[in-house]
Amino acid sequence: MKKFLNNPENFLKESLSGLDKAHQNLLQVHFDPTFVTRKSINSDKVILVSGGGSGHEPLHAGFIGHGMLDAACPGHMFTSPTPDQMMAAVDFCKPNKGALFVVKNYSGDVMNFEMAAEMTSYENASILVNDDAAVIDSSYTTGKRGVAGTVIVEKIVGSLAENGGDLKSCVDLGNEVNQRCSSIGVALSSCTIPEAGKPTFDIEDDQIEFGVGIHGEPGRRREQIRPAQSIVKDMIEAIIEDFKGKNLALPKNTELLMIVNGFGGTPLSELYLIYENACEILTGYQLNVVRSLVGNYTTALDMEGASVTLCILNDHIKNHWDTPVHTASLRWGI
Amino acid sequence: MKKFLNNPENFLKESLSGLDKAHQNLLQVHFDPTFVTRKSINSDKVILVSGGGSGHEPLHAGFIGHGMLDAACPGHMFTSPTPDQMMAAVDFCKPNKGALFVVKNYSGDVMNFEMAAEMTSYENASILVNDDAAVIDSSYTTGKRGVAGTVIVEKIVGSLAENGGDLKSCVDLGNEVNQRCSSIGVALSSCTIPEAGKPTFDIEDDQIEFGVGIHGEPGRRREQIRPAQSIVKDMIEAIIEDFKGKNLALPKNTELLMIVNGFGGTPLSELYLIYENACEILTGYQLNVVRSLVGNYTTALDMEGASVTLCILNDHIKNHWDTPVHTASLRWGI
Repeated sequence: MKKFLNNPENFLKESLSGLDKAHQNLLQVHFDPTFVTRKSINSDKVILVSGGGSGHEPLHAGFIGHGMLDAACPGHMFTSPTPDQMMAAVDFCKPNKGALFVVKNYSGDVMNFEMAAEMTSYENASILVNDDAAVIDSSYTTGKRGVAGTVIVEKIVGSLAENGGDLKSCVDLGNEVNQRCSSIGVALSSCTIPEAGKPTFDIEDDQIEFGVGIHGEPGRRREQIRPAQSIVKDMIEAIIEDFKGKNLALPKNTELLMIVNGFGGTPLSELYLIYENACEILTGYQLNVVRSLVGNYTTALDMEGASVTLCILNDHIKNHWDTPVHTASLRWGI
Repeated sequence: MKKFLNNPENFLKESLSGLDKAHQNLLQVHFDPTFVTRKSINSDKVILVSGGGSGHEPLHAGFIGHGMLDAACPGHMFTSPTPDQMMAAVDFCKPNKGALFVVKNYSGDVMNFEMAAEMTSYENASILVNDDAAVIDSSYTTGKRGVAGTVIVEKIVGSLAENGGDLKSCVDLGNEVNQRCSSIGVALSSCTIPEAGKPTFDIEDDQIEFGVGIHGEPGRRREQIRPAQSIVKDMIEAIIEDFKGKNLALPKNTELLMIVNGFGGTPLSELYLIYENACEILTGYQLNVVRSLVGNYTTALDMEGASVTLCILNDHIKNHWDTPVHTASLRWGI
């Protein structure tokens, strides 16, 4: 393992301290228990709290700020945060209109957010994100995994909450957006957790993992590397199949938001190539990508690989996507 | 080599086409010859044109837009663009107040930009960026290399140009900012050019290249990996030594802008850890980091590694840093 680190056990704390120092006007990192909040809290809006295992940066703390999250609870690497973290985050934000937990569907996260939801004295609700089309049931979860669609849910619900939406309308919109999102990822390499010191899984020099999870969980198949166009075609087809399974129609000229998301070790030039190949394929389906993100948004430490997420837009969701956002890793209009 | 690509010879074209599609309201990619411009050109401001070998994305095309560049000329991977690209870019922008070339100090870039400067009929001037503290003279250049400080030069001069600065004042400010910037990089791995198909250099599993260039050029020394604090300490010391060599004083409470820049294969969590370690060391020098960027801004394809850039601020430069910018990869206030 070759990484910029000191003591592996201290990696997360040092990294979060750096996040805090780099964005002092925007957010605040708290320790014992560990949670991150906006620098300036508005208790009179619905308070959005997310969290999950670390190693997916900028998810979630990088999305704290105006128009998106109010707080995030980073667990240890690839490990759920604990209920005391969520409760401390909610207590700090003192929500007068309720707290909304945005939870990726992994068994540990689901259980710990449920415990926090039961134990906190504040009104609350949860959105479960499960946008990964790859597999049903996996190493860390029952049902479908939550992956990069989470960024879209957090942006859209964050916008509604910022603009006065109440708890119920935020939950409903979040569930709708999750339903309209579908993702699939491909790994070219494994990833290495600092405390483990060795790759999470082995993969041959000419192999890829199609449908990989963001912790290196197995996907649909291990196969030979092939041209990007061919890989991306299968990715788009898997997503479209997933939409069909959810009874979501894709009539001609449907407007889409597309995220081409790097897993941490893949350069931007390759992500734009994937974007290009994906657009060509979607044009064949007569679907229109009208909004997009290309970059590292939901990573798996240093994994080489990428995922594609499509979200079926409507005017309401598109408008909320376009509202100003000011976070460490997503910013526009402000 | 495992990459998302189809034909290696077509890699750049497909990647640029993806950039174009992903940012249709912002920029426009032209081919034969290859250059990228803003979608909407204002010929009545100083026109900022940069460029260089590809493989450093988002540099330079990712910094085209309001408040920063007007055009960029991407060469082949790690290869200078040709004078016809710069001339076509200038012709397209029809500068009424002159064109300003922002050139990183590599022999090929310098030569080709000089040729374009001589051959174009438009008034023009150049800024040479050479912020790399690592070595004097290297594989691709005489003198010091231009690296991530280029982002700062492009932002600051871009702001002045956007706000009506004339050609001379833009050149003067660019030279001043370049002088006030110093950078140094460390590689944990090599990088792989798609058309080469194999790593640019070999490096042992327990070795780092201290002072590496953004094309994998040798730095100051090959050495054993050690704790990040120790590496970062040497990086900061090299930068401070470089400032001394430029007769730049660093009195107590000097305000700094710091970029912790990933080379493409290093995850954000490690970059924030470097940021944290760097801040601790700078506090020891009684220097204040008041502005920062942490992320992949000047990359070396898929190289694992990072660089630190410090820029000595003054009120004028700080104000220009803070003005609105709207590009694919740097955006705030707009």
